[in-house]
Amino acid sequence: MPVIFSYQDLFRFTKQIFIEVGCNDNNAKEATATLLSADLRGIDSHGVARLSGYIRLWEKGRINMKANFKIVHETPSTATIDADEGLGLIAGGFAMNIALNKAKNVGTGWVAVKGSNHFGIAARHAMMALEHNMIGIAMTNASPLVAPTHSTKRMLGTNPMAFAIPAKNEPAFVADFATTTAANGKLEILQRKNLSAPNGWIQDQNGNNSFNPNELSKGGALLPLGGDREHGSHKGFCLGAVVDIFSAVLSGANYGPWVPPFVAFLEPPANPVGSGIGHFFGAMRVDAFRPAEDFLSNMDNWIKAFREAPSIEGQPNVVIPGDPERIAEAERTINGIPIIDKVVEDLILLGEKMNITFPQPISV
Amino acid sequence: MPVIFSYQDLFRFTKQIFIEVGCNDNNAKEATATLLSADLRGIDSHGVARLSGYIRLWEKGRINMKANFKIVHETPSTATIDADEGLGLIAGGFAMNIALNKAKNVGTGWVAVKGSNHFGIAARHAMMALEHNMIGIAMTNASPLVAPTHSTKRMLGTNPMAFAIPAKNEPAFVADFATTTAANGKLEILQRKNLSAPNGWIQDQNGNNSFNPNELSKGGALLPLGGDREHGSHKGFCLGAVVDIFSAVLSGANYGPWVPPFVAFLEPPANPVGSGIGHFFGAMRVDAFRPAEDFLSNMDNWIKAFREAPSIEGQPNVVIPGDPERIAEAERTINGIPIIDKVVEDLILLGEKMNITFPQPISV
Repeated sequence: MPVIFSYQDLFRFTKQIFIEVGCNDNNAKEATATLLSADLRGIDSHGVARLSGYIRLWEKGRINMKANFKIVHETPSTATIDADEGLGLIAGGFAMNIALNKAKNVGTGWVAVKGSNHFGIAARHAMMALEHNMIGIAMTNASPLVAPTHSTKRMLGTNPMAFAIPAKNEPAFVADFATTTAANGKLEILQRKNLSAPNGWIQDQNGNNSFNPNELSKGGALLPLGGDREHGSHKGFCLGAVVDIFSAVLSGANYGPWVPPFVAFLEPPANPVGSGIGHFFGAMRVDAFRPAEDFLSNMDNWIKAFREAPSIEGQPNVVIPGDPERIAEAERTINGIPIIDKVVEDLILLGEKMNITFPQPISV
Repeated sequence: MPVIFSYQDLFRFTKQIFIEVGCNDNNAKEATATLLSADLRGIDSHGVARLSGYIRLWEKGRINMKANFKIVHETPSTATIDADEGLGLIAGGFAMNIALNKAKNVGTGWVAVKGSNHFGIAARHAMMALEHNMIGIAMTNASPLVAPTHSTKRMLGTNPMAFAIPAKNEPAFVADFATTTAANGKLEILQRKNLSAPNGWIQDQNGNNSFNPNELSKGGALLPLGGDREHGSHKGFCLGAVVDIFSAVLSGANYGPWVPPFVAFLEPPANPVGSGIGHFFGAMRVDAFRPAEDFLSNMDNWIKAFREAPSIEGQPNVVIPGDPERIAEAERTINGIPIIDKVVEDLILLGEKMNITFPQPISV
């Protein structure tokens, strides 16, 4: 059974941890807000559950908590950032703000980041565009867990992409998804529940179909969106590849099989081809294409049409991307954030090590 | 058995047809080159096989062969084009050239198009960026054939996206794919061969799984990439939705279920929400992010690493996106283009109607 904690308590705890390892107050706040936005939105795999992982990478000298982000290349609509091996949780907002400013000036802004680390949930960064009536885009590469169609080798990360698109009276359209059949977090849930995985999610080390959610620890791989060639896995491979190239080949980060692992117990590849991991961000002013009012009211109509599309008997309505996360956020902001026992234990231990008291639950 | 025709003969014939229906010489040449680039690249569903379809739409007054493309909105990095109900085959190149020019000036260029028609293969337009050391992006919405996850209703087209990314000594990375499990052309092949469709490609009018490649004529639908919820069809739905919104809500074209059909025997919806169909194009100078030489040599390394990834026993090597089409183009440029009997008959009839002689095959 998960235990419920208030957002405010988790925020205080997490921020103190980031300060303890060297972040200044502003950066600790920003890193915490980004990390906890995942818990609020119901994406538990990317929130406080990852906090001790970030700290272990810092202990190994693989995250620089005093990083100095620098623009190393730019044009009126683009920039490349060197994140100085800092927290992707902060580099994401830094880069997105540059994209927003460039979009203000010339219609769109596009920022590639190298030398970074895990940036939390992609949607958090893309959504920064919404209040400016801009479309936001965020993507990142990640440690290799995915085999391209026909291969046995893990060559790509789950490489998510997020798109945030503003509407007028309707809530924004916010899509954020791994370019694989299933994200790694889904396997972790099956592992905990001792369930087998559906066909088309994973293969074993020889490329055979597998139903074992622990297959990745034995050299197996996740599969690109589509699952197999007959169902379009070559398209999922293309998507993952584009995310990798935009995030890392454009920026000068490590790409493909050279992306360093997110876990401290695995060493980064000995022969890096770039610096850290890479992200890619975009911002497009909707009024760079047509009057904002026309765009926003058309988006309302688009969203309504899809929400009202007839559903298959016995199935729910069409889910507008972003709806489940928005509903989770509204609910969890008020009622608190459920955290599973294993993560609570991990956070208590982390707090003890740093002399920071982990908060009491608000209900059990 | 298909019959082989020379590219040059097909070009002369097709160009004459476009001139006969009112295109000027330059536009007829451009429309022909775009259409036939599909045949050359082995994408037979999007080449001369569609010529008589374009002409039937013209006969119905739904394609304007004397269209006057206009920029109706712009910023330094963006533009919106009204294609005046003209041929997407020409509007694509027109819009992409504007994107390339804007990228020359400010690093990137992004162009939305409304009032257009079918633009041929997306890769053709994206690839215009390659010779400029730019990344090219092209996407388009299309007549609704695809049901969102959970719905019985066809709300989206197969909405393809294409990415063309230059390398140095390696051939460019060129991905071009429908955001569905399988494109409609694949169903047509199964129909001709009297074969059933794989699981996860189509559903019937009630949303049940179907294996009947003729299901679409009975109210069935294609499925988003992923096939079903368990295999990520909600992600394929997100991709199709983003293509629709970028192409049509940004430009002011018809979106979602309002996109007019490509076939003349179906009438467009009576209550349009925009003008024609929509496209979206992007161009990014690679040297807007880092020195071109660094990007291009990293791309060579990326491509080599993926090409050389170990393959599953009994399976081919990893396919670098664009390789099969490039190989087809090299072969067909020399040896000619195979066209199936049904399409040859259709083109002979079209020629007779216009008093233009269809060429003789170069081999039978």
